[in-house]
Amino acid sequence: MTIFRYKIVIEYDGSDFVGWQRQHNGISIQQLIEEAIYKFSGQEVEVFASGRTDAGVHAKGQVGHFDLSKSYPPQTIMGAINFHLRPHPIVIIDAQTTSLEFHARFSAQKRYYRYVIANRPAPLALDVKRAWHVFKPLNFIKMQEAARLLEGTHDFTSFRASQCQAKSPIKTLDYINITKTEEHMIFIDLAAKSFLHHMVRNIAGTLKMVGEEALNVEDVARILEAKNRSEAGITAPAHGLYFMATDY
Amino acid sequence: MTIFRYKIVIEYDGSDFVGWQRQHNGISIQQLIEEAIYKFSGQEVEVFASGRTDAGVHAKGQVGHFDLSKSYPPQTIMGAINFHLRPHPIVIIDAQTTSLEFHARFSAQKRYYRYVIANRPAPLALDVKRAWHVFKPLNFIKMQEAARLLEGTHDFTSFRASQCQAKSPIKTLDYINITKTEEHMIFIDLAAKSFLHHMVRNIAGTLKMVGEEALNVEDVARILEAKNRSEAGITAPAHGLYFMATDY
Repeated sequence: MTIFRYKIVIEYDGSDFVGWQRQHNGISIQQLIEEAIYKFSGQEVEVFASGRTDAGVHAKGQVGHFDLSKSYPPQTIMGAINFHLRPHPIVIIDAQTTSLEFHARFSAQKRYYRYVIANRPAPLALDVKRAWHVFKPLNFIKMQEAARLLEGTHDFTSFRASQCQAKSPIKTLDYINITKTEEHMIFIDLAAKSFLHHMVRNIAGTLKMVGEEALNVEDVARILEAKNRSEAGITAPAHGLYFMATDY
Repeated sequence: MTIFRYKIVIEYDGSDFVGWQRQHNGISIQQLIEEAIYKFSGQEVEVFASGRTDAGVHAKGQVGHFDLSKSYPPQTIMGAINFHLRPHPIVIIDAQTTSLEFHARFSAQKRYYRYVIANRPAPLALDVKRAWHVFKPLNFIKMQEAARLLEGTHDFTSFRASQCQAKSPIKTLDYINITKTEEHMIFIDLAAKSFLHHMVRNIAGTLKMVGEEALNVEDVARILEAKNRSEAGITAPAHGLYFMATDY
């Protein structure tokens, strides 16, 4: 039997789901996409993702792959899955046929995340569940200085969730760029081949504490050096996090 | 009795409301704000707005004013209204005391609107109800050329809703700027002292038709000249429109 592999790029609002991965306690993004594929193809597939996002985390460019025993034009794949996904806020924004060597998770060369903070006194009307609302004015320059200390190859044990299953806590953070818009949004953009569990949210939570001057820039060097999760700042909430893209 | 006037700036997601103005067929933004003011002050007030947005239209900077017989610090006004507005997606983002000469509607010198088009083949997951989804690629340059024809002082009868109550159809459009992001969002930014009813949505609908080459740039000159609503393009949907700000 010939096998055809498809690569898909997925956008979703993670607010109402238990996360990417199938779980017993609620509806996952993986499950809804697999069900949509079944509805048009009649085949039960497993969709593998570049990153298994947590409950509440959003994606602008999650990447997945799956196999079918039949060949479909990529446009058909995209249209059919999207048709069956409605009205859930999950959309296939690109589809391609790909070789059997491609694996959404294991072939990934670089992953991109964005953490969004809305930094203003007033609560959020338009960005509720889309950004972390921090009402105290953040010292943007200090956040940038602290971020610079985390770039490069380090043992990120202090920024790793206790349930993290990665073999090694050593990761290479290609960059952390922090930018600010006129509308008081702060974007923390990160790139790395791979991340530890909760690593981006733990970094964002620590940088927020630097921004509000609950921690010094030097504290971040100390936290990194301590290799101890209890030394670092809080875990930033899931709803400010976006999985942006993967390079292969 | 001394009267104290307050100016407020309001952000809202208009998706689930009948619009700014109180109506019999559903919940309005005006009603919810007036009720919130009553809950903390015990006073029944009328809140006047810079622009009475339609059902589904959003605001990042609607401006309103109202009077109370008691003096409160602006921070108290903002906090108390926001407390009582929860969990509705309506937020006071700024509050000031102002003179009795100030009127949110009649003192306005310039109003700013933004119309947002998401121009990509795939449906929207994150921007549903926040942007007009147009799947056919739009010719951005032609849209810009057509927009330039509408700038300045014109009789905008062709872009005016039949139920419009303005005395004169002559308006001065200070500018229409059209910009595009890497994520295929098209922003149409407009400024004028005042607008006719549905004027921004009728302009956006016509420019979208120019973008998909259903109309030529020259057609827009002809439509404007015709002074006849039936000559212009479609009315763009409410959920792509944002009331951004008002200058006084």
